[in-house]
Amino acid sequence: MDGDVATARNPGSSVGAADVLAAQARLHRYLAPTPLHHAERFGCWLKLENLQRTGSYKVRGALNALLAARERGDTRPVIAASAGNHAQGLAWAAYRLGVHAITVMPRNAPQTKVAGVAHWGATIRLHGDSFDESKAFAAELAARNGYRLLSAFDDADVIAGQGTVGLELAALAPDTVLVPIGGGGLAAGVALALKWACLSAPNANRRVRVIGAQVEGVDSMRRALHGDRSLREPAATLADGVRVKEPGHLTQRVLEDLLDDIVVVREAELRETLVRLALEEHVIAEGAGALALAAGRRIAGKRKCAVVSGGNLDAGVLAQLLAEVRPRAPRRPRRRQRELSAPPLEPAITTIFRVPAATPSPRVAVAMHAPDQELIA
Amino acid sequence: MDGDVATARNPGSSVGAADVLAAQARLHRYLAPTPLHHAERFGCWLKLENLQRTGSYKVRGALNALLAARERGDTRPVIAASAGNHAQGLAWAAYRLGVHAITVMPRNAPQTKVAGVAHWGATIRLHGDSFDESKAFAAELAARNGYRLLSAFDDADVIAGQGTVGLELAALAPDTVLVPIGGGGLAAGVALALKWACLSAPNANRRVRVIGAQVEGVDSMRRALHGDRSLREPAATLADGVRVKEPGHLTQRVLEDLLDDIVVVREAELRETLVRLALEEHVIAEGAGALALAAGRRIAGKRKCAVVSGGNLDAGVLAQLLAEVRPRAPRRPRRRQRELSAPPLEPAITTIFRVPAATPSPRVAVAMHAPDQELIA
Repeated sequence: MDGDVATARNPGSSVGAADVLAAQARLHRYLAPTPLHHAERFGCWLKLENLQRTGSYKVRGALNALLAARERGDTRPVIAASAGNHAQGLAWAAYRLGVHAITVMPRNAPQTKVAGVAHWGATIRLHGDSFDESKAFAAELAARNGYRLLSAFDDADVIAGQGTVGLELAALAPDTVLVPIGGGGLAAGVALALKWACLSAPNANRRVRVIGAQVEGVDSMRRALHGDRSLREPAATLADGVRVKEPGHLTQRVLEDLLDDIVVVREAELRETLVRLALEEHVIAEGAGALALAAGRRIAGKRKCAVVSGGNLDAGVLAQLLAEVRPRAPRRPRRRQRELSAPPLEPAITTIFRVPAATPSPRVAVAMHAPDQELIA
Repeated sequence: MDGDVATARNPGSSVGAADVLAAQARLHRYLAPTPLHHAERFGCWLKLENLQRTGSYKVRGALNALLAARERGDTRPVIAASAGNHAQGLAWAAYRLGVHAITVMPRNAPQTKVAGVAHWGATIRLHGDSFDESKAFAAELAARNGYRLLSAFDDADVIAGQGTVGLELAALAPDTVLVPIGGGGLAAGVALALKWACLSAPNANRRVRVIGAQVEGVDSMRRALHGDRSLREPAATLADGVRVKEPGHLTQRVLEDLLDDIVVVREAELRETLVRLALEEHVIAEGAGALALAAGRRIAGKRKCAVVSGGNLDAGVLAQLLAEVRPRAPRRPRRRQRELSAPPLEPAITTIFRVPAATPSPRVAVAMHAPDQELIA
């Protein structure tokens, strides 16, 4: 099916790589690319979406959906159910565009996420004890009031927006990309973007595996992709952001074609990874944000990249994890003898800052770097 | 005195902007530029040196010193006293270059810093209860064994290495840059780099203020610059990394010429800023790492940038801060009406990823962005 990725539409669904490229064209004026950070002790690159506006990648999909609606002349108020991050992303996007947004979150949503939505002035309704209960209520409100119901993942505009994460990753030329899966919006978008990028690469042999990560007991997408569409109440988990009972249909169709594998992570691995990320990499990930990296520890790859999808974690939860979890020390590096020769000079990634008038001379403004030697080797 | 910055040597000292440029030429093969992150709710850019290798900017100066020594044919083992981060930076650099490194840290150094040094295989001596006691012991060991004593800040190679932070900042064209000051190495290097960058900018009116940040009771550099060279025992502080009794002499000479101001921050402000950084920006800073941003809250600027100098904080300390400190909610954004016109198209910073052979087509590899509208306005 790979050949279809490059065309405008994936035949089994109504979203394709072209939609992701269109999303990038809309979003780049509002959202700067997030950093790629090499987590040396994990042997993995991290795409730091916890440094994204509102603290998660969700703002991409929400903003793309609002901008696309504006292009279509759709000015209805927008309502969305969310575990918290989609609501924050929508609230920010609605604030930026002057649109009226209503959000429905479960009553047990993290305080930091609820506060984030309030910060950007969106209307908040707390309803139900899980994302799926909030979703039903949001659908009811939308039908009653004529709002536009914006799914957190099962929407072509949302998937395309999340896919811009994949486009920003492509320049790293990873062989393995790990993404957390709840409803599947991020995974679908990233898979569309990266598989297209591989097809359009000059080197025809280039391959990238896109691997999903789920938590044990919250693996509805994995089961659905294996043909088990029964709805089971998801287990309690630190990863509230991916605690989804019913995965998306549109996302599922994309992932059937494009996802290479799903790794199911144990809760204890997730907790340990979150704490190690904080202590060793100084990066705060929320539960779902540490999920892909936790899965990455089970997957071999020469150039792995895990998406740290978000960082919205309550202070109390983080404090408790830091007090309770004692991660094992990372593996010691091999003893290295004197550096025998200089590292290769060829820079693999060159960053050129093209600067506006009131800025320093190009001599300062050009920063070059080669990735770590060990990565080249 | 500004005119002298552009020349090879600052007349009042033995380090100049040319040394910083030479350091950049040495370091770029080993260290990638760290990200610049816009902390929206603080209204300030952050230079994330907590994402630097070993979790602080100190690795720049240490690596530059080892590389410069290699160029000079100096192969002696290197010894350094450090509150922890200089030791970690030296350990990493020594590991990379196959040099023997000995580090002396105070007995109360954070566990994470001691563990970081051990991780990279350097010899560790825990001695004294403060940085200045460790320093005296390191000097004694160096004299006895013929080691090269590498100051944590009062060394031209070290200052030049730290100055590369300033070169990476210059493309942002900030009007105000805030840096934490302990011994003054980072501040001196950054001031040299940025003042030079302004002088060599095409726009002759461009000015940048470099402002130091110190904690109350640990303000030896501020007092020294005001002519008070008496040595006072520094107060206890969360910012262990800047707890220095006697500031550098070389750094002092540079800062006399180039530093615009020093802000002294209260301990409570520091704690609150550290917790807000964690909860709102998902960035873990150590005490000294949050210092510049804390100072930035007292300084007006159109385009401010604070250096988050490091992130090596013990789990227990962070957990306690998260449990104890309840930061005030950030100011709510002004209510914004519907976006009236599209934001300006001109990108202020363009990032072009020039990719090696085995990578995707340039269509994916080009990511453009304009900074936030509010920043342009």
